[in-house]
Amino acid sequence: MTTAPSFTPRDPDYAARIRAGFDAQPLMDFIGAALTAVAPGRCVIELPFRPELAQQNGFFHGGIVGTLADNAGGFAGYTLMAADAGVLTVEYKLNLMAPAQGERLIAEGQVLRAGRSLVVSRAEVYVLGPAGKTHCATMQQTLMTMHGKGVA
Amino acid sequence: MTTAPSFTPRDPDYAARIRAGFDAQPLMDFIGAALTAVAPGRCVIELPFRPELAQQNGFFHGGIVGTLADNAGGFAGYTLMAADAGVLTVEYKLNLMAPAQGERLIAEGQVLRAGRSLVVSRAEVYVLGPAGKTHCATMQQTLMTMHGKGVA
Amino acid sequence: MTTAPSFTPRDPDYAARIRAGFDAQPLMDFIGAALTAVAPGRCVIELPFRPELAQQNGFFHGGIVGTLADNAGGFAGYTLMAADAGVLTVEYKLNLMAPAQGERLIAEGQVLRAGRSLVVSRAEVYVLGPAGKTHCATMQQTLMTMHGKGVA
Amino acid sequence: MTTAPSFTPRDPDYAARIRAGFDAQPLMDFIGAALTAVAPGRCVIELPFRPELAQQNGFFHGGIVGTLADNAGGFAGYTLMAADAGVLTVEYKLNLMAPAQGERLIAEGQVLRAGRSLVVSRAEVYVLGPAGKTHCATMQQTLMTMHGKGVA
Repeated sequence: MTTAPSFTPRDPDYAARIRAGFDAQPLMDFIGAALTAVAPGRCVIELPFRPELAQQNGFFHGGIVGTLADNAGGFAGYTLMAADAGVLTVEYKLNLMAPAQGERLIAEGQVLRAGRSLVVSRAEVYVLGPAGKTHCATMQQTLMTMHGKGVA
Repeated sequence: MTTAPSFTPRDPDYAARIRAGFDAQPLMDFIGAALTAVAPGRCVIELPFRPELAQQNGFFHGGIVGTLADNAGGFAGYTLMAADAGVLTVEYKLNLMAPAQGERLIAEGQVLRAGRSLVVSRAEVYVLGPAGKTHCATMQQTLMTMHGKGVA
Repeated sequence: MTTAPSFTPRDPDYAARIRAGFDAQPLMDFIGAALTAVAPGRCVIELPFRPELAQQNGFFHGGIVGTLADNAGGFAGYTLMAADAGVLTVEYKLNLMAPAQGERLIAEGQVLRAGRSLVVSRAEVYVLGPAGKTHCATMQQTLMTMHGKGVA
Repeated sequence: MTTAPSFTPRDPDYAARIRAGFDAQPLMDFIGAALTAVAPGRCVIELPFRPELAQQNGFFHGGIVGTLADNAGGFAGYTLMAADAGVLTVEYKLNLMAPAQGERLIAEGQVLRAGRSLVVSRAEVYVLGPAGKTHCATMQQTLMTMHGKGVA
């Protein structure tokens, strides 16, 4: 297991930029997700359970788990980009390791390596449920920096 | 590029079972998705655009693309399982190849190989937009058969 | 299942460039692999079995299956790049679907989408054995074009 | 970044079993790899550079990086299995993050979650080169326990 690398953000106002980016995504509001922590190369997104977000057994749907993981990893990478850059998910790979049964989902995104164009990040997803905090999914992701393509 | 393999389903009532399984997922109703085709080893899910499903540019959010792909591949695998089996997504890997900009998303799931316990499937996601039909994402997935664990 | 898209190569001498690129990799000679087909967006690599390439049961080792798949997909992408470009594997995901037991491994790489910088490709790996031709592995891959960084 | 979970092996003789399993793979000897550490849920494999293992620039070939990562993750999972079980790689996903340029490759495999049948593991690959120790690749992997199918 590696220790999280430490990063110095190019944009001193990265936290405000991340919050604005998160608020600009209607889907996050629609499902009820909240950005709960931002740091250089790191981002945490949380989501309380609602019956509409469930699969057939009343657990969080795997697509919702993937959505949160993708966004946590993506915004983690975005913290390290220049103020005028945009971010694009190139691909991600998600392992669903345990049922996402519980009242709250927590996705922690963390950058592993930030190159000039490509960024590799991870997200760990936990569910808070009757059995405490369960590590229910893990994601590995590639992001692309869109130089000069950020939202004005 | 391989041709789609042809499969004989164990359960002659697989199509009704898939439709019931789809209807049992509240998330599909919440986002407005519909099951539009089912065949042995194959499943198609479609989703009209709604502003709530968007990312910051007004395109379908990547998490929604992933949700549809995961479900199309998962139900494709489920068509080949026994009547009393359940299906579990072990993992999937999604490449987002073009912006999902358009009025309708179409995810086509297809089984590649069906083993006793593990099933490998794929999904191709297309978006119908101003430029016609664009192949916007591709997914590779592993499913697990839960023998005897299907919904009664 | 998608049909293979058709591509027009930027470099009319792509086939010679691919053969030179293949010959420049000492590992291919070391394991005994041969480039057996090249077309725009497509590349086939074959490898006769040798006991040194085996895992504990005498089948082709999964690492060798991955090596062939990675290279077939990578060279498939390289066919579509400019004469002065280099190619880099960003990432790949490989499903091992059946034991690679047999006398010859065949990896067929195919480009799915070729963007300005990023290329998405696939490889299907087959093994020729006592049971005929078995589809033993499938791979999904992201490549990066290194503009102006090709071998002189 | 998660801390490595701690595991109690089912088989007290797991270390000897891992060493025997490693020695039973002719490919490891052919490329010159050595098993340098084994612990419950963990395994380290190292490989000195040899020109035969290179790609076109004289760096370790990506296929060799993947081979080492796959094996380190696979044997990490195998440490936690019963004495009479076999292990199978279902799939893995590898990000190549930096050129593998150097005199030695080190792949550290670590189990993330060990279920009854499926095990999720990771491997981090480092290269020792002129610039010191570089984290050159990261892998996420799914393994399958073959109950009662171990080598006699």
